[in-house]
Amino acid sequence: FKQKVIGRQLREEWARYNDFPKPSRAGDFKEGQLVTVHGFLARKRIKSSKLAFADIQIDNGPAVQITSSFQEPESPAHKTNQALRGIPLYSPVSVTGTVARLHSNNPQPTETSPTTRSRPGNFPTGVFRIDIDLTSIQPLNLFPKDIIVSKGVQFPPSSRHLQIRFSDPLRTRLLVRPQIAFQLRKSLNDLAFTEVETPILFKSTPEGAREFLVPTRRPGLAYALPQSPQQYKQMLMASGIRGYYQFARCFRDEDLRADRQPEFTQLDLEMSFATGEDVMQTVESLVADLATVLNSDFRVVDQDGEIHLAPKSLNSAHSEESGTASRYVMPPFPRLSYETVMTRFGIDKPDLRIPFELNRVDHLLPESFISMITHLDKPIVEVFRFRPSPVSGESPLPTSTAFIDDLMKTLPPALSQNPDGAPVALIVNSSKPLRGLSPLGFDGASALESGAADPESPTLEDGDVLVFQARPNKPFQGASSTALGTLRTLLYQAAVSKGLLPRDLTFQFLWVTNFPLFTPTNETDTDTDPGQGGHAGFSSTHHPFTAPLTDADVELLATDPLRARADHYDLVVNGVELGGGSRRIHVAKMQEYVMREILQMTDAGVGQFAHLLEALRAGCPPHAGFALGFDRLVAVLTYTESVRDVIAFPKSMKGEDLTVRSPGGVTEEQLGVYHLGFLGGKSKE
Amino acid sequence: FKQKVIGRQLREEWARYNDFPKPSRAGDFKEGQLVTVHGFLARKRIKSSKLAFADIQIDNGPAVQITSSFQEPESPAHKTNQALRGIPLYSPVSVTGTVARLHSNNPQPTETSPTTRSRPGNFPTGVFRIDIDLTSIQPLNLFPKDIIVSKGVQFPPSSRHLQIRFSDPLRTRLLVRPQIAFQLRKSLNDLAFTEVETPILFKSTPEGAREFLVPTRRPGLAYALPQSPQQYKQMLMASGIRGYYQFARCFRDEDLRADRQPEFTQLDLEMSFATGEDVMQTVESLVADLATVLNSDFRVVDQDGEIHLAPKSLNSAHSEESGTASRYVMPPFPRLSYETVMTRFGIDKPDLRIPFELNRVDHLLPESFISMITHLDKPIVEVFRFRPSPVSGESPLPTSTAFIDDLMKTLPPALSQNPDGAPVALIVNSSKPLRGLSPLGFDGASALESGAADPESPTLEDGDVLVFQARPNKPFQGASSTALGTLRTLLYQAAVSKGLLPRDLTFQFLWVTNFPLFTPTNETDTDTDPGQGGHAGFSSTHHPFTAPLTDADVELLATDPLRARADHYDLVVNGVELGGGSRRIHVAKMQEYVMREILQMTDAGVGQFAHLLEALRAGCPPHAGFALGFDRLVAVLTYTESVRDVIAFPKSMKGEDLTVRSPGGVTEEQLGVYHLGFLGGKSKE
Repeated sequence: FKQKVIGRQLREEWARYNDFPKPSRAGDFKEGQLVTVHGFLARKRIKSSKLAFADIQIDNGPAVQITSSFQEPESPAHKTNQALRGIPLYSPVSVTGTVARLHSNNPQPTETSPTTRSRPGNFPTGVFRIDIDLTSIQPLNLFPKDIIVSKGVQFPPSSRHLQIRFSDPLRTRLLVRPQIAFQLRKSLNDLAFTEVETPILFKSTPEGAREFLVPTRRPGLAYALPQSPQQYKQMLMASGIRGYYQFARCFRDEDLRADRQPEFTQLDLEMSFATGEDVMQTVESLVADLATVLNSDFRVVDQDGEIHLAPKSLNSAHSEESGTASRYVMPPFPRLSYETVMTRFGIDKPDLRIPFELNRVDHLLPESFISMITHLDKPIVEVFRFRPSPVSGESPLPTSTAFIDDLMKTLPPALSQNPDGAPVALIVNSSKPLRGLSPLGFDGASALESGAADPESPTLEDGDVLVFQARPNKPFQGASSTALGTLRTLLYQAAVSKGLLPRDLTFQFLWVTNFPLFTPTNETDTDTDPGQGGHAGFSSTHHPFTAPLTDADVELLATDPLRARADHYDLVVNGVELGGGSRRIHVAKMQEYVMREILQMTDAGVGQFAHLLEALRAGCPPHAGFALGFDRLVAVLTYTESVRDVIAFPKSMKGEDLTVRSPGGVTEEQLGVYHLGFLGGKSKE
Repeated sequence: FKQKVIGRQLREEWARYNDFPKPSRAGDFKEGQLVTVHGFLARKRIKSSKLAFADIQIDNGPAVQITSSFQEPESPAHKTNQALRGIPLYSPVSVTGTVARLHSNNPQPTETSPTTRSRPGNFPTGVFRIDIDLTSIQPLNLFPKDIIVSKGVQFPPSSRHLQIRFSDPLRTRLLVRPQIAFQLRKSLNDLAFTEVETPILFKSTPEGAREFLVPTRRPGLAYALPQSPQQYKQMLMASGIRGYYQFARCFRDEDLRADRQPEFTQLDLEMSFATGEDVMQTVESLVADLATVLNSDFRVVDQDGEIHLAPKSLNSAHSEESGTASRYVMPPFPRLSYETVMTRFGIDKPDLRIPFELNRVDHLLPESFISMITHLDKPIVEVFRFRPSPVSGESPLPTSTAFIDDLMKTLPPALSQNPDGAPVALIVNSSKPLRGLSPLGFDGASALESGAADPESPTLEDGDVLVFQARPNKPFQGASSTALGTLRTLLYQAAVSKGLLPRDLTFQFLWVTNFPLFTPTNETDTDTDPGQGGHAGFSSTHHPFTAPLTDADVELLATDPLRARADHYDLVVNGVELGGGSRRIHVAKMQEYVMREILQMTDAGVGQFAHLLEALRAGCPPHAGFALGFDRLVAVLTYTESVRDVIAFPKSMKGEDLTVRSPGGVTEEQLGVYHLGFLGGKSKE
């Protein structure tokens, strides 16, 4: 070891930033008292050569404003004032001074626990702002000049730490997330559920999605990361646990579409001696408890157009919402079958805030119109009616026309180039023949004028838009949406963002039930989950443990499996699928029958589930469960469309963590430990 | 698809076990009322041809006893009686009958929340046993005849589900575990900490232990599973989060010694604007809150010699402990330096329940004795004095003698074949010359008779055992124990298990502080962590982010790094290290200096930490943190030595989950997706 001497500059810098006074405790904050507070220098306002103000920003704490003034040059107060001026904005600081004023929205402070009260760095309950006359200020590190912070700045993903520091909506969502988790845990504990942690180092089983492998140092053996704790939780039911839950990290090595993450958190639960209906009622009670707390303790914040949720206890100087009506539609939630939602909304995760539904009208339309909109023979034709919110004194017609023109021009190719025909929109307009509905002929126009497009509100008005779409006349076969269902959602979102419909901040939950048990295997779709690897030509819609819905569906297993329905249920809110669950097959023989005889899995495939079959055989009680996408839940409840906004360090669409730059390059030496090598011999990095 | 008909037997079995009545709600349980209860048939007692009793076992619920009797043959009661007799023990059942008696330890039932009260399957608060006159019973599956259940049966690891079902201590520990976690979360929330989930798909960094790799489908790139969320949590400090915590799953691909798991859970926390002392005080407040709850709501159960902890609310018919003295020694906990604990106890995780310490005596001993016990030149010789608990009317001598003879014969090789000399025990015996201490010579014997072996209790008594051990006279250099320290612990545990010392159920916490910052790299120890890969001949004792303790230690970095002490602290209870933490280096230049100049890491090595250096540079505040081994904490608090007893599905010493049989074999095809192949071309499986 070469003897060296540590540089003086480095040593001095360390000493300068290393020692700092302890912060005051909650009980110390009284007007006139000397206190110490730690935080970030957030804003300076230099009023004159002798007077300056600044804000100290404290995470999860009150706003602090400091005042520094002096009379005598070279006085301690002058030096403090100079120090304040010299410290770069956003630097961490320790400030000491006299409390000038406490701003509290809680005239009778509630009693906090002794532990909380006496911990240094805590603040009195209800105090949302503290004014301090500055005595001294010490920087604890320096914020560098080359990082530019401005209002609403977007930092590159590599600087996630800066984004969290300087974006209020992001930081607040990260703060609200654990509060939602804590409330869910509280409710589950009250219901005598037990939280059980299950392994993340699992093994590969032919269940559904593609798994990540984790090689071991034992040649030829690997763990796999779990898609869900499904098999472990079923074994816990066989272990006699009455109610299990877990905030479980899950993994899918899939091509990331839309807003998916390779690792995600689900609130996973399972109940023994329970049916699907029991689980739905339990989940409803969790949502009800959560909604009650969110409605009473959190408020909706509109920050420069970005809407989010914040605890009422923080920054209460912000404008309060008026009224106390619940934003949450409370249970019991509607239970609609897959068949019903596909028919009424054209999507298996409908947004019940959308004020218009699909209606089938092909029996009312002339052949001429149908052949104009599709090449299909004897198609189903559906319509929905969109009506923009009235603006007093203005005709809605020009607005509707411009809106629809724009929308139709920017349709995604799947809709505009749909081989079953593109959508067709007609706008009701009294100044035109048949009020603009002449393509429908007299009978068609009359039928639509008298309620065929919307039986709830039968009459048409000028500016109403009727959107028609054809589709083949055949069963839905497990599809997740129709073209018109997709367009309906698109149109609603566009209308809200353009102000043609009010922004609806309520949460409208529903259950979608009675899904098909199996879905045909689409061999051309290489992007799909590998499924169960069976040879039946179809695979389980959800997973092979799902129970058939009724005795009739048990019969259909063997005779017409694609018609068999599952005791599966999805929880949906505002067009977002929050999670799904099912009753499970708890009889070992039935489980093996489904795997072998129905799904046509190989012996080796079935063998991978030996542990589960053995657990079911050991007197396993009936059971059912649910998995709630927790990232998604938090995103929806805090009014963002992306789970990336509720995850501290999310992955990109390519599965990269751009902050720490993972995944990273591996060497042949590292792989060698696992008896593995690069195909072709070399890394391409 | 081949058309088949589902077998009649399977169909009927499914129908028989599939439909069952809803269980009653808490409010339904009143004497004389008809109720339905679900559970496992746990015990049958056939009293006569017309009378039978049985227990229904309900996880996390009251004991239920059912009575089935009949008068008339062929009556419904007769058929129910026959059904009960026919159902195999341990089968899941639904029973319906009239409440005969409610046994409650809560004469004034507390109000439960409406949600809890009204959920089917809940029971009234305080009711620990319910007697029911049986009306009907339905099996919901059958427990197979070939699984033999007997008292205290140990099932093979492949049948973990049976072990959880039939071992009360195991099931109770799994139940207590989340209650401990919940209490910790509650305390942390009260202290304004924010729970943040950090990625499990991380990357390989040269930090310490060997990591598991997770290959990606992008050639040459892999994730690594984190040893701890260390770097993410430090980035959160730079993000302005004041207090972070997480129950984090962590991973180490190491050879599993003793009682370690390749995946484990730690309660990870970090505080900004904080010193190590602030963190220790915060952790103490968490432990204090937890101890208060454990002491008031949980009781110690001795079940056939296996001691565990159970909630008082369950099975309250069990004998209560007498007295209410706390089992937990409350904070502030002693803070002892590494140097002190190594000197006094010969181990860096001392068990403060052990009633004897080490004392250095080589200056009191004759050369003849020293050369008898060691070949070392000028060694340090230490002694401890063990005194068995007195048994009235018996001489302790024969007991001590037999105990020490037995212990010395069964010493592990590291102690009995220690190249520095084996331990030597002398037993005080008034019937021998110099009371059995003649090898020490007159002066040596006198010195030990007057307190050299134990200044706290100077006089020696017959049956006292003095154990001597030599060691080289040199600094501890980061060692975790000395030979005599190890022997002291072994002897204490043996004495307790043989009844020579009382079993001590208290928890005695302490902090061990002032660890050396660096530890010499032992190049011959291939089993060790890879460390930081630097070329300095030593590596960070804990990790390269640990701050030096004082300004003097900063100076030592460059001049005599192995003497530099760290601001690191370990929390120890009863000889078990629960966790450790440190103040971190928060100044980017100092962090880079330690990595480059002191540890002599390569550019590439330092480059792996670019994200962390960048975060520190962005005005990161001072911060310090802690990681608590949560599995270990639960094991200690529930009186078991193995973390396997508090993990639902633990891994074996070989890293195998013997229940699901993971890791599993991988195919060349699976590896090919990741552009990888087996070295040598083939799997050995």
